[in-house]
Amino acid sequence: MTAPAIQIRPERELAPDGLDRLTSLVADDLAEVNRAILARMQSSVPLIPQLASYIVAAGGKRLRPLLTLASARLCAHDGNRHVALATAVEFIHTATLLHDDVVDESERRRGRASANALFGNKPSVLVGDFLFSRAFQLMVEDGSLDVLRILSNASAVIAEGEVLQLATANDLGTDENSYLDVIRAKTAALFEAACEIGGVIADRPVEEIQALATYGANLGIAFQIVDDVLDYSAAQARLGKSIGDDFRDGKVTLPVVLAYARADEATRAWWRRCLEDQDQREGDLERAIDEIRRTHGFRDAILRARTYGEQATAALALFPSSPIRDAMLDVVTFTIEREF
Amino acid sequence: MTAPAIQIRPERELAPDGLDRLTSLVADDLAEVNRAILARMQSSVPLIPQLASYIVAAGGKRLRPLLTLASARLCAHDGNRHVALATAVEFIHTATLLHDDVVDESERRRGRASANALFGNKPSVLVGDFLFSRAFQLMVEDGSLDVLRILSNASAVIAEGEVLQLATANDLGTDENSYLDVIRAKTAALFEAACEIGGVIADRPVEEIQALATYGANLGIAFQIVDDVLDYSAAQARLGKSIGDDFRDGKVTLPVVLAYARADEATRAWWRRCLEDQDQREGDLERAIDEIRRTHGFRDAILRARTYGEQATAALALFPSSPIRDAMLDVVTFTIEREF
Repeated sequence: MTAPAIQIRPERELAPDGLDRLTSLVADDLAEVNRAILARMQSSVPLIPQLASYIVAAGGKRLRPLLTLASARLCAHDGNRHVALATAVEFIHTATLLHDDVVDESERRRGRASANALFGNKPSVLVGDFLFSRAFQLMVEDGSLDVLRILSNASAVIAEGEVLQLATANDLGTDENSYLDVIRAKTAALFEAACEIGGVIADRPVEEIQALATYGANLGIAFQIVDDVLDYSAAQARLGKSIGDDFRDGKVTLPVVLAYARADEATRAWWRRCLEDQDQREGDLERAIDEIRRTHGFRDAILRARTYGEQATAALALFPSSPIRDAMLDVVTFTIEREF
Repeated sequence: MTAPAIQIRPERELAPDGLDRLTSLVADDLAEVNRAILARMQSSVPLIPQLASYIVAAGGKRLRPLLTLASARLCAHDGNRHVALATAVEFIHTATLLHDDVVDESERRRGRASANALFGNKPSVLVGDFLFSRAFQLMVEDGSLDVLRILSNASAVIAEGEVLQLATANDLGTDENSYLDVIRAKTAALFEAACEIGGVIADRPVEEIQALATYGANLGIAFQIVDDVLDYSAAQARLGKSIGDDFRDGKVTLPVVLAYARADEATRAWWRRCLEDQDQREGDLERAIDEIRRTHGFRDAILRARTYGEQATAALALFPSSPIRDAMLDVVTFTIEREF
C-alpha cells in the first residue's frame, strides 16, 4: 500500500486530542448522556439492548451529542434538557449508522465487526427504527415543538442525502456541487440541528441560534470532507482502520471528483472502469491513491474543508470568548487536522 | 395445492366489501389524504417519490388512515387536522412495510413486485426512513404533543414487535401468548394509535379516547390473526396472492402454534424440520395446510379473531348509533370475514 503524501500541519498548537478540552468541560453532562443512552435503549425484547449497546455504547467520539451539550452550555442553558436531547441526537445518529451499514453492506465499523455483520441485516434495520422512535419519544418528553421540528426536518434531510448518495454512486458525472449536496444532507444537517437545539432550549435570540446552526453546518461539511479523505489514508490503515471502503462501494467523494476532473482521458477511462463498472483489480486502490495525490486531490479537499472550518469558526465570533467557546473552536481544528 | 376447508360465514348480511360503507362516508377526507400522500412524498431527490409512489400510491386498503378519519368523524372533530394525521399514520405504515419487505426478503407485495425487489434493498431502507421522518414532520406541523407522544410510542412498540418476531421465528417453542405479544406490538399498536388520535384531536373525554384505543387495538389483533390464516388460504392463491410466505420464512403464527400443540411427536418433528431447520421439501406447504386444518388450527384461530372482534365492537357501545359508528362496526366484520 503506497502511503499518500498528505501532510496537513495544524496551524496552532493542539491539545493531544482537540476534543479533549470540550469533553472535559462538559464531562458531567456527558456522563449523564451516557447513562441516558444505556437507560433508554432498554426494551423488553433482549435483542434490542444487545444490538444497540454493541454499537451505541461501544464508543465513538459522541461528537454530535457533545455539540448539543456545548451549545446549550455556551448559551447558558440552566436546566437539564440538553442531556435528554443530546441522547436523542445520538440515537438518531446511531439509527442512521445502523441503516448505512446495511445499505453499504459494511463489515467493519469503528475497528471491529459492524452490527449487521455480527447480528445480521434484519435486526440492524429494525433496531435502527427502534432507536429512531426512541429519539422522538425523548423529544416528546422534553416537550418543545421547536426541537421536534428541527430534528424531524433534519431526519428527513438525512434520508434524502442518503438516497442522493445512492444516486451519485458509480456516477463520475458527479461534480463538486452534487457532492456537497449529498454531504450537507447526510452529515451536516444533523451537526447543524445538534447545535441549533442547544440555543433553542436556552431561549436565545434568533441570531445566536442561527450562528450555532451555521457553526454546526459548516463543521459538518468539513468533517465529512475530511472523513472522505481519510478513507484513502495510509495513516488510517496504520491505525488498523479499514481504508478504501468508498472506492470499493463506487462512492464519488471529493478527492475522486477532483482527481477525475484533472485526469487525462486514459486515466478517466480507468476511473470509470473502477467506479462505474465496478470492475476493480489488484492494485487499483493503490493507483487511485496515487492518482488523487498526483492531482492534488487530497490537498485541495483539505483546503476546502478548511474553508468550511473557517466559516464555522467565524460564526462563533458572535459569542464572547469563554472556555466553552474556545473548546468549540478547537473542535473545528481537530476535525480538519485529524490524524492522517 | 390442496384447498384448506376454511368456511367462515358472516353472521349478518355484509355489504359486498365491508369497508365500502366507511370509505364512502369519509370519501372527501380520504381524497384529501390521498392528495396529501402524493404531495408530501415529494422530494428534490427523484428516487424518493418514484419508490414511495410505487408502494404508497399503489393501492392497499388505506385501512389505518381510514380509522383515523372515522374516529375523528365519530368524535365530531370539526377541523381538518385528521387529514394530515391520517397521512402521517399511512406514512408510518408504509415505512414499516418497506422495512418489513427488506427484512423478510419479500419479492411480492399487494400482488406485484415488492419495492425492494424492484428498486433494491438500499433505497427501500432509506425511503422508509424518509417517510417515517415525514410522518413526524406532519405531526409537528399539526402541533399536538399528545399526538406526537401516541405515535412515537406506537412506532417504538412496532419496532419492538418486529424484533420480537425475528426472535420467535424458527422457534416452535413460541406459544400463543408470545404470538399475541408480537402481533399486539407489530400490528395492533398502530391500529390503536390511529383510532386514539381521532379522539384526541376532537378533545373528547378520556373514556371515549380509551374506547377508541380499545376498538383499534382489538381490531388490529383480529386483523393480524386473520392475515396469518390467509397466508395459508387457497382462496388467496386463487386471487393471485402469494401464500405460504410465513411458512417459507419460518414464522410461527397462530395457526402453526395451534397445530403444533395438537400434533403427535412424529408430526412435531416434521414441523421442526420445516420451520426450525428451514429444511422444506416438495409438498411440505400442502402438508402444513392439511395439518393445520386437521387440528382445527384455522377454525380456532378465526374463533380467537372473532373474540377480539367482539371486544372491538363492544368498545364502540359507548358511542351512540350513527352511520359512522355502524360503518366502523362493519369494518370489524369485514376484517374477520374477509375472503378466504
